[in-house]
Amino acid sequence: MAQVKNKQIVLKNYVNGFPKESDMLIVTSDTINLNLPEGSNAVLVKNLYLSCDPYIRGRMSKTKGSYIDSFTPGSPIEGLGVAKVLESGHSNFKKGDLVWGGTRWEEYSVLNAPETLFKIEQTDVPLSYYTGILGMPGMTAYAGFYEVCSPKKGEYVFVSAASGAVGQLVGQFAKLLGCYVVGSAGTKEKVDLLKNKFGYDEAFNYKEEQDLDAALKRYFPDGIDIYFENVGGKMLDAVLPNMRLNSRISVCGMISQYNQEQGDGVRNLFHIITKSVLMKGFIVTHFYHMYPKYMEMVMPLIKQGKICYIEDIAEGLESAPTALVGLFSGRNVGKQVVVVARE
Amino acid sequence: MAQVKNKQIVLKNYVNGFPKESDMLIVTSDTINLNLPEGSNAVLVKNLYLSCDPYIRGRMSKTKGSYIDSFTPGSPIEGLGVAKVLESGHSNFKKGDLVWGGTRWEEYSVLNAPETLFKIEQTDVPLSYYTGILGMPGMTAYAGFYEVCSPKKGEYVFVSAASGAVGQLVGQFAKLLGCYVVGSAGTKEKVDLLKNKFGYDEAFNYKEEQDLDAALKRYFPDGIDIYFENVGGKMLDAVLPNMRLNSRISVCGMISQYNQEQGDGVRNLFHIITKSVLMKGFIVTHFYHMYPKYMEMVMPLIKQGKICYIEDIAEGLESAPTALVGLFSGRNVGKQVVVVARE
Repeated sequence: MAQVKNKQIVLKNYVNGFPKESDMLIVTSDTINLNLPEGSNAVLVKNLYLSCDPYIRGRMSKTKGSYIDSFTPGSPIEGLGVAKVLESGHSNFKKGDLVWGGTRWEEYSVLNAPETLFKIEQTDVPLSYYTGILGMPGMTAYAGFYEVCSPKKGEYVFVSAASGAVGQLVGQFAKLLGCYVVGSAGTKEKVDLLKNKFGYDEAFNYKEEQDLDAALKRYFPDGIDIYFENVGGKMLDAVLPNMRLNSRISVCGMISQYNQEQGDGVRNLFHIITKSVLMKGFIVTHFYHMYPKYMEMVMPLIKQGKICYIEDIAEGLESAPTALVGLFSGRNVGKQVVVVARE
Repeated sequence: MAQVKNKQIVLKNYVNGFPKESDMLIVTSDTINLNLPEGSNAVLVKNLYLSCDPYIRGRMSKTKGSYIDSFTPGSPIEGLGVAKVLESGHSNFKKGDLVWGGTRWEEYSVLNAPETLFKIEQTDVPLSYYTGILGMPGMTAYAGFYEVCSPKKGEYVFVSAASGAVGQLVGQFAKLLGCYVVGSAGTKEKVDLLKNKFGYDEAFNYKEEQDLDAALKRYFPDGIDIYFENVGGKMLDAVLPNMRLNSRISVCGMISQYNQEQGDGVRNLFHIITKSVLMKGFIVTHFYHMYPKYMEMVMPLIKQGKICYIEDIAEGLESAPTALVGLFSGRNVGKQVVVVARE
């Protein structure tokens, strides 16, 4: 029976405002035995890749009736990741299996709800993709675009946070369908990626626009049919007057709002009436039953080079706090992944 | 050929902020001949009942790309009403027919688009009902509740401006379906009407609540499935955190916002994500093809006394400016109608 020390990223205390690296601690456990208790239904895993996602911010606050529980200060951060099964007490899994799903920010985890894990069957793509295009963000783009927006060929699509884990996929899905697609992002490098790598028709740096409404009118003189909302706040307010009749807003995230005590006031909601806009929030887990269908669609696209996926890889568990914090200033370029171990 | 003077209510100038009676003028034309020009396709009508509706406020401003044109200062206010055909150049109508639809705030009108008028076939109910329960507001309640909200028996329904032209019907439709229904209004008299006349399970005076969120939690400890939105602003902000998973917001109107240069900031939109809320604006005219179906449903309900409709009747065309202005301070109790003539 192997004995190891287990390095962990622990939440120090509940966070107010922007999260800082010092809100998390890197701790190393005493030597522990790598095994499951007799009769356990759990799986013991070695974590390989961890996923930095904006929703994690919500769990770092003491929440009031959110859809997902707050973390417990003193305990490791929880999140999604790719892991290797070292020992299994559950019939779905055996030693050596690769899985993706909910794990913790530590080297080794005992996962007590293995039925929520997805077994990774296809390994001829980068394993880290299961934190992104082949994991939760991929399903988010798929469900949020195809299921929520009911897109049609030729429609005008706008994506905010367009080079992020989800946005880069939405833009590519929309182009594959034959839509006109414009994205916004926060650096010149990201804007270049949008146009040159992901095939967006146009892209702009929202930080360089004095007037977001004017920017949108420049790229959408005839208005927007679909807005894939990742940021909220001022961008949403600028988008609303530019929506077309019977247009759709898929509300996936509002990252601009997560570190504010009180959200930005959105003043242009009246346009929802005048343009008969449908605005729909969604939670990706409600669409997980469609994961096999999504895999069938997306794997060939990856293998044929018809879709690409950009990751921002941080090396080592100890880099996780910096990587997570960077999401909220937009430091990451593409999907933010933390490598704990490669095998 | 009869000769008459035609009294009119004319928009004096574009309105900023709350409309005032002095924004409109009562003028009387020179003596005119009551007839249509040879070969005209129009109808000449005598206006009987005029409808005061919140959307009229939008047309009193110089709008920037709204869904409906601004009025022209110096011309009569346009609106919906019930009228009697005096002369017809259109094959759909003949002298003596009663119609409802778009007309002007004057005693006699030549209507150049008679194909947009509805012929009134059933006259064993008050004719004024065709400005309300049997007209645009009725269709608004019907489409907004049944089509937009997909209501189910037993669901928790909240209606704002609940005793108004639309709200009083939404509440009664919801009760007939077996929902739990709560309404908000702005006076004790209206709250009493909601509970004692329209059968709302509960009702409250929003002006007497220090904390709208607390009021909603009192009446909806388990949250809201359907919010029929007539007011916008602060009420919407209070409603959002109280919506249930997969709930629906039918955005019919936002009367609290119509007289503001800049709308109230709505800060709680993030809950659209956490509760997978569908928020849908709609324009009633897009549902007018369902009018015969609606009539089939609602006429028996009226005749069997299963649904009632409260009107606030202002006598005489000259009372129209006061009646219209009163909508925005909530002075009306029920549907605001102006009687120009009874036959």
